[in-house]
Amino acid sequence: MNIKKIVLPETELPRQWYNILPELPTPMEPPLHPATGEPVSPDDLLPIFPMPLIEQEMTQDTYVDIPDEVLEKYLIWRPTPLYRARGLEAWLDTPARIYYKNEGVSPAGSHKPNTAVAQAYYNKISGTKRLYTETGAGQWGSALSFSCALFGLECKVFMVRVSYDHKPYRRIMMETWGGTCVASPSNETNAGRSILEKDPDSPGSLGVAISEAVESAVADENNKYSLGSVLNHVMLHQTINGLECKKQMEIAGDYPDVIIGCAGGGSNLAGNCLPFVRDKINGKDIDIIAVEPAACPTLTKGPFTYDFGDAVKMTPLLPMYTLGHNFMPKPLHAGGLRYHGMAPIISQLIVSGLIRSVSVHQLETFKAGIAFARTEGFISAPETNHAIAVTIQEALKAKEEGKEKVILMNWSGHGLVDMMAYEAYLAGELSDYTIDDEEIKKSLAELEDLPKPRQYRV
Amino acid sequence: MNIKKIVLPETELPRQWYNILPELPTPMEPPLHPATGEPVSPDDLLPIFPMPLIEQEMTQDTYVDIPDEVLEKYLIWRPTPLYRARGLEAWLDTPARIYYKNEGVSPAGSHKPNTAVAQAYYNKISGTKRLYTETGAGQWGSALSFSCALFGLECKVFMVRVSYDHKPYRRIMMETWGGTCVASPSNETNAGRSILEKDPDSPGSLGVAISEAVESAVADENNKYSLGSVLNHVMLHQTINGLECKKQMEIAGDYPDVIIGCAGGGSNLAGNCLPFVRDKINGKDIDIIAVEPAACPTLTKGPFTYDFGDAVKMTPLLPMYTLGHNFMPKPLHAGGLRYHGMAPIISQLIVSGLIRSVSVHQLETFKAGIAFARTEGFISAPETNHAIAVTIQEALKAKEEGKEKVILMNWSGHGLVDMMAYEAYLAGELSDYTIDDEEIKKSLAELEDLPKPRQYRV
Repeated sequence: MNIKKIVLPETELPRQWYNILPELPTPMEPPLHPATGEPVSPDDLLPIFPMPLIEQEMTQDTYVDIPDEVLEKYLIWRPTPLYRARGLEAWLDTPARIYYKNEGVSPAGSHKPNTAVAQAYYNKISGTKRLYTETGAGQWGSALSFSCALFGLECKVFMVRVSYDHKPYRRIMMETWGGTCVASPSNETNAGRSILEKDPDSPGSLGVAISEAVESAVADENNKYSLGSVLNHVMLHQTINGLECKKQMEIAGDYPDVIIGCAGGGSNLAGNCLPFVRDKINGKDIDIIAVEPAACPTLTKGPFTYDFGDAVKMTPLLPMYTLGHNFMPKPLHAGGLRYHGMAPIISQLIVSGLIRSVSVHQLETFKAGIAFARTEGFISAPETNHAIAVTIQEALKAKEEGKEKVILMNWSGHGLVDMMAYEAYLAGELSDYTIDDEEIKKSLAELEDLPKPRQYRV
Repeated sequence: MNIKKIVLPETELPRQWYNILPELPTPMEPPLHPATGEPVSPDDLLPIFPMPLIEQEMTQDTYVDIPDEVLEKYLIWRPTPLYRARGLEAWLDTPARIYYKNEGVSPAGSHKPNTAVAQAYYNKISGTKRLYTETGAGQWGSALSFSCALFGLECKVFMVRVSYDHKPYRRIMMETWGGTCVASPSNETNAGRSILEKDPDSPGSLGVAISEAVESAVADENNKYSLGSVLNHVMLHQTINGLECKKQMEIAGDYPDVIIGCAGGGSNLAGNCLPFVRDKINGKDIDIIAVEPAACPTLTKGPFTYDFGDAVKMTPLLPMYTLGHNFMPKPLHAGGLRYHGMAPIISQLIVSGLIRSVSVHQLETFKAGIAFARTEGFISAPETNHAIAVTIQEALKAKEEGKEKVILMNWSGHGLVDMMAYEAYLAGELSDYTIDDEEIKKSLAELEDLPKPRQYRV
């Protein structure tokens, strides 16, 4: 019988994370202080992050040891299985060999706990009592609530209004783990109130929710803020995925020609691909594809420039692809892909030509998700469906060209708490949102007076 | 670092199911034809089941080969991990070593696909075009829809009204896999219409839904019926769980003193415990506990007698513990535990003193589920919470007695599509349903004229 999945024993769990910073072909430009425009210092970040995470944000070590306490929690769901998508391959009748790394086996159902557990741990040992964060689709908020429960921390989550309304199950998950969750924009912060004054029915955005969480965190020295994507230390923690995956591909006796992941803030793609990007820097030929929604085309339509991570300009300026910190994306169901910016590391790798980006429309992603469910069995998160859509495109291209090809997809999470999105799709109620270029232009105009990175590109 | 979970490689997947029938200390009495009262013949069952499953229902072989096509589908999620509940143990401060077998990793999120995949396969090779079934909480209906998708069969599910209303996510899962799902009682069958005439707001019951599915199946020779619990062949397929678990306990270097599983129709408990019951028959000292809701106390308050499996008396008479085929359980959230009867195999083992039964109230089960989520990470199905509640009781008893003890719990599924039940619990809106003994007496009065098994007991 053919092997369906490759599962590493617990003894093969990687003991270190991989840090790509020192190996980037062009060094990253620093984050800048929102007030002074000068590079931020560790002390600038101390009101929002504990020192161990600030150090990880800036470290130039290629490998960072994973503490035993974090490894112990990782074992709740890691190492995760690497699947061969034999059902999907047969249905597509493709010569491509399709693999997917199943990050949906965590208690929260996605890759997010890889960094949530680490962040909760470092906050715990640094004396933090309560963590504030934001969440889009709810994957991050639930992952952090889960992780805070394991380490005895309080957790409060600002959830983007449109997801809060569409995805009550995610909120209840957070509450089951002992966290609290409020809809953003909320009346609990200045940031939230200022948005609600302009638009009481605002669907919210990750940018606004980040502002609310940061504002709450800095108000009390026992509290800190936690971010589920974008930042370097988040990408670092996520590399546990790719490090496992390299071992598993080796056992499979294959090496990926193509790597595909959806990209909202960039963390699931980074987690899977960064250890392979290292190989690419060293000469391997791999096509690495970041997939984003056509309705929030940060990488495919935005410039690479300095921008704020949040809507009310509290965060440092980051060098990244962005649609502008006030960009308000359409309420598409892949809430985790509605962020205006992109991780500086992923952005930098795109600037360097090591990763390329494509966008797909909502209906194509759900069609792909349905095909995946009926052939591979697992129901995927709407975000993950973006990666599946492009995986199917690439597999059909291989068929057309009559070429063997190894495709590795990062299956970032399951969709069992996103069933309302599937219902809307099956009922024919979903549509493809088209993005108005004028709207992007207007949103980007606000960046004109901000500093520009050396590698600035429109 | 301590091992958290034991994962067998795919090569260790058992190749045979275990059949306890030939090894029972007292032989089971036969199912009786509903019209004649005579033992049913294979031909009697042919309108509803394909011949390979009828043979498995009656076989006296101790082991039954698993077809390669079924093994191939099992590999989508099997072998499943055996966990050590170190987080829960630490929180309880118990000397007990608690293990749980995680059946929630299947695409449908429960143990149900173990038999659904096998039944879909045998129907497929027997020429069936469409399978009809019923579902309580929705775990079975979604498992069968998933399995039918894998083998290209149509699937139609009658879902108990109260769950249909409370658990839309389960219905959408079925539809995502291509199945169709209607609320029961429905207007599509005589059985459904007769119930609705008496009570248009009937919350439904598994007994009624079974009647509707059987009636639909027998109406067309291309269609068959599929049952997710109760019958011998279902218990047989589920033993893949316990067979894996025995290998895993051996690797762990432990052997269970106590085995705990929730019991609705009996299949998840049977799947885990039957290979251990074999050891018990051969002299091992194991305390095996079936846990049921106090609001549907089939084992703890019902007699062992002949009864119908469904509400309108279409199924054979089965020798089992029962509350009467017209018993209408309260709308408690553990919809999978609302069945009036119990698998004849489990019933027989209770009569023989090899398994004992206890009941727990709803609030205690959710309290246990919350504790489990915050210590072990995973959010459990409301049914599974019944097993967790008694696991906690047993672990605390071990603490009180200062005794080491090995507890094995069958973690039958996750609760990510049952979050509304958790919300109700967290909001203080749930209550403990007490059962009216008069109500049971009334329901049981309808069994007076039915045949009695030799081992009849009240």
